[in-house]
Amino acid sequence: MRSTLLSRRDLEFLLYEWLDVEALTKRERYAEHSRETFDAVLELSEQLATKYFAPHNKLNDANEPTFDGERVTIIPEVGQALAAFAKAGLPSAAMDYELGGAQLPATVAQASYAWFQAANPGTAGYPFLTVANANLLIAHGPEHVEKFVKPMLAGRFFGTMCLSEPQAGSSLADIVTRAEPQDDGTYRLFGTKMWISGGDHELGENIVHLVLAKIPGGPAGTKGISLFVVPRFLVGDDGAIGERNDVALAGLNHKMGFRGTVNTVLNFGEGRWTPGGAPGAVGYLVGEPHRGLTYMFHMMNEARIGVGLVATALGYTGYLESLDYARTRTQGRAKLPADPSAPQRPIIEHADVKRMLLAQKSYAEGALALVLYCARLVDEQRTAESDDDRRAITLLLDILTPIAKSWPSQWCLEANSLAIQVLGGYGYTREYNVEQHYRDNRLNPIHEGTHGIQGLDLLGRKVTQQGGASLLALGSRVDATIAAARAAGGEAAELATRLDPVWRRLIEVTAGLFASGDIEAALANSSVYLEAFGHTVLAWIWLEQFLAAADRPGDFYDGKRHAARFFYRFELPKTAPALDLLASLDTTTLQMRDAWF
Amino acid sequence: MRSTLLSRRDLEFLLYEWLDVEALTKRERYAEHSRETFDAVLELSEQLATKYFAPHNKLNDANEPTFDGERVTIIPEVGQALAAFAKAGLPSAAMDYELGGAQLPATVAQASYAWFQAANPGTAGYPFLTVANANLLIAHGPEHVEKFVKPMLAGRFFGTMCLSEPQAGSSLADIVTRAEPQDDGTYRLFGTKMWISGGDHELGENIVHLVLAKIPGGPAGTKGISLFVVPRFLVGDDGAIGERNDVALAGLNHKMGFRGTVNTVLNFGEGRWTPGGAPGAVGYLVGEPHRGLTYMFHMMNEARIGVGLVATALGYTGYLESLDYARTRTQGRAKLPADPSAPQRPIIEHADVKRMLLAQKSYAEGALALVLYCARLVDEQRTAESDDDRRAITLLLDILTPIAKSWPSQWCLEANSLAIQVLGGYGYTREYNVEQHYRDNRLNPIHEGTHGIQGLDLLGRKVTQQGGASLLALGSRVDATIAAARAAGGEAAELATRLDPVWRRLIEVTAGLFASGDIEAALANSSVYLEAFGHTVLAWIWLEQFLAAADRPGDFYDGKRHAARFFYRFELPKTAPALDLLASLDTTTLQMRDAWF
Repeated sequence: MRSTLLSRRDLEFLLYEWLDVEALTKRERYAEHSRETFDAVLELSEQLATKYFAPHNKLNDANEPTFDGERVTIIPEVGQALAAFAKAGLPSAAMDYELGGAQLPATVAQASYAWFQAANPGTAGYPFLTVANANLLIAHGPEHVEKFVKPMLAGRFFGTMCLSEPQAGSSLADIVTRAEPQDDGTYRLFGTKMWISGGDHELGENIVHLVLAKIPGGPAGTKGISLFVVPRFLVGDDGAIGERNDVALAGLNHKMGFRGTVNTVLNFGEGRWTPGGAPGAVGYLVGEPHRGLTYMFHMMNEARIGVGLVATALGYTGYLESLDYARTRTQGRAKLPADPSAPQRPIIEHADVKRMLLAQKSYAEGALALVLYCARLVDEQRTAESDDDRRAITLLLDILTPIAKSWPSQWCLEANSLAIQVLGGYGYTREYNVEQHYRDNRLNPIHEGTHGIQGLDLLGRKVTQQGGASLLALGSRVDATIAAARAAGGEAAELATRLDPVWRRLIEVTAGLFASGDIEAALANSSVYLEAFGHTVLAWIWLEQFLAAADRPGDFYDGKRHAARFFYRFELPKTAPALDLLASLDTTTLQMRDAWF
Repeated sequence: MRSTLLSRRDLEFLLYEWLDVEALTKRERYAEHSRETFDAVLELSEQLATKYFAPHNKLNDANEPTFDGERVTIIPEVGQALAAFAKAGLPSAAMDYELGGAQLPATVAQASYAWFQAANPGTAGYPFLTVANANLLIAHGPEHVEKFVKPMLAGRFFGTMCLSEPQAGSSLADIVTRAEPQDDGTYRLFGTKMWISGGDHELGENIVHLVLAKIPGGPAGTKGISLFVVPRFLVGDDGAIGERNDVALAGLNHKMGFRGTVNTVLNFGEGRWTPGGAPGAVGYLVGEPHRGLTYMFHMMNEARIGVGLVATALGYTGYLESLDYARTRTQGRAKLPADPSAPQRPIIEHADVKRMLLAQKSYAEGALALVLYCARLVDEQRTAESDDDRRAITLLLDILTPIAKSWPSQWCLEANSLAIQVLGGYGYTREYNVEQHYRDNRLNPIHEGTHGIQGLDLLGRKVTQQGGASLLALGSRVDATIAAARAAGGEAAELATRLDPVWRRLIEVTAGLFASGDIEAALANSSVYLEAFGHTVLAWIWLEQFLAAADRPGDFYDGKRHAARFFYRFELPKTAPALDLLASLDTTTLQMRDAWF
């Protein structure tokens, strides 16, 4: 039976027929791999996700973690799933051999991870936060690898990232957690961290918190932020678990969705524990002082694409579930006025149901393609032959990151809403999965930088950085696709003829926004810009898929081509009014006054 | 302190400055009323909603009704609220004096009811279903008024509507519940009804089910459907509660939201009880046989506008809650690069937060205006001086009903999503109300005819009925508003200049859809049509409000004018790509094949 988590056929198309990940095996880093090893990982991922993750997804939702004042209780299925995930070596799938990793391409690793996110994002949250934490330390805190990273990769320790504070959510400049230097080179941390996923539990032997804090006397604002490793339990030089550190769980946040991942408020240094005989959470500096935000952004970019992946996986599974439902549920008849004696027909035959399924297909498959494209860029980055090549790829990845984060968060959430709609009243009940996907997915436009923050990042930073070099890098890729489509002729050329003017206009509008020199006005509609930009990028991604499908025969390719058509007819035109608004340098929002609300 | 349920100031503007409900007091039906009596009802409604409904809204959500196999348990606060509501005479607020009603205009009654829906839609569900049930019987089953309607209006009995069955949700032609005639003129019903809100509980002495069923031997399809009163307990001619009827609760549906209203599967005639010594649910015919669907549609139109009102109320309260939050939550600073030593500012000062609040304002206030406009038409209908006048009003109400149902369901849900976004992570937690509004509101595009059904109703029935008479009726109202705006000059005339071509194009596109003669193709994109039509209607409603605000000074009027501007700049232009798609007679969805998914 075909899985309703993801489509293996689509993954094969994206990986092998479009992104040509087999070509990566010619590079030294991936030389020991082959399509066989990739397929084995994907096959294993589907099996583990189906066997260990999917069955307790609803249970996770209905039985969220609880805190009795002493400890956090999580349903046992979570620990069992995480053990199976670790045992398969998946946490280090994309890491270096020398760390015990499998050195898989990021593209394949992301495809593997998508299975787990589709099956159970609550449970999958624990290892993926841990992997992101480990990646940061590998890159910026090699001194912590032996003691902290290796046990995380083995599944014995888990990791978190601790950024927000009650008074500083999106505004990290305002954190007040302080890190006081000690004579032995360690620090003691004091402060409260908010929204910490995986912040306290008994799933492993230890939790490795990565904490942003300020060393007294440092510069004000973001330039005075440093990064620390703060373990829940101190760890001896021999790796043995030692004293409890002064990190106390202040309480749990109770969410609308994503309930399987415990979300916490943590007090650092409240004095509940006294490691080494004194209160204060013992922390170890990562890298250099005051560079914490730079390090964290390394993790953040990865985390943002990761958010895009979760959103995509949820959109995808909701699509497949509603597709199955539409094929079996009968309701209504073919023509109006209908012949009441004829049997009812499957609802997939109704035009409006087809519209809702096609929209989901275009959102979910488009988002998956975008996220895997970004992962492919990560592989290019890792194996670039020169610094210039690496810089060029980085520029491209920089500008695509806010899109890879925000677009799936918005449109795969919309896909989940359409999945509910296809199921009608049933979709609104907890008897089916789609309402949970919708609730789970609603987190994604919020965490790791809200939708609005992504808009500011894109328009206020990424499109202008290095004299517009990122935008140029993306433009040359888009132009190349348009040229290829024109060369292919026929319908591909027609789609290119639709994309080309939208892309040109986007560039023109971008220039116009900054021409005035009024930054506040230029950024006033950055969310509108983000959405128009995102839809244009996705039209490009769909043209890429259309070209990869070419004129190959068969239902799968017919479906790809038709989803591309749908996107060009129903979605791409939505950019026009948005671009008109931006071109007019509209200041409606700026003119609005508090008292007028 | 200003309520965060609704804005009393806005209600006053809509009722007195725009819809001129005071003029209704010149008509005989409403002659005993005055602005004072209207204000007293609105004041009382706000008080009761605030005191009895709002406090247990979250409790209702967290403690949904349970069924132990014997009886349904509902938290006691629900019964207390309903008692207060009944004691105030609100169930019959808009009904005739002779029924014990207050004969209030529908416009005022709807405004009153909005307070309760904003405060607690789960609890409010019980009386509003009951009122709709009573209205149907008053209109089509006067023989049941004494025994069933009066106890409902007194708050002793509650009412339901039983349409759907497991195999027949949107397709009522396929119901199989049968009603077997008995020698005494009663019927015995056998069948299963699905999605029955308020279907079983102990809140009152009895539950009056209005049940669609087929009398054996009748015509096939919808023409063979009759309507029956089926009480949970039989009622003696003296009004005394008698034997338990054979209506058994088969189970509860567990929903994503709207959890306060118990939702049930009911078995009629399963033999659990044997009234009069025999199994079968005793039912009493309403009106004539085989005319059940016609009667039910009377109730359905009222229920559809009622759905629009609930959606609106939820959008409105979410808007006001996120507005309060945005005024007090500080985060970030004014300019980039920011001075980190400056204090953080309230997030309402950020352009993107203003955008999210303005969008909510334009959706919620627009939707409220639309729903009250429809209620005003109901008052016109009730007090029309001639049959011709009544027919003209009915034509207008007919075409606005699918918009009044679907537009608030879509856009006030979007408003709730924006409210979550304004609150960020906090909005995603159950500590605040907005996530519940979002979950509650997600029901509204589904029940009482899905979004897709509304599209088919609008394009397949309402715009073409009586040679397009409904569309013409609406067009003459729109034209009158445009003319008035042009006469007013200035900015009003500018807005008219934007609305006029969109309206003309909508008419042109409508004609084009049917010109081909291919009904299947014409209706293929009826949901897209519904949405474009809805946005155009709302632009007209906003122009109406803009004109009513005229050039009056003050923050309130400035806010109205600015929300209108926002709608015209950010929202109305979204109709262009939708109308382009419709004009192209696009058949992308029809071409899609099952195997291609």
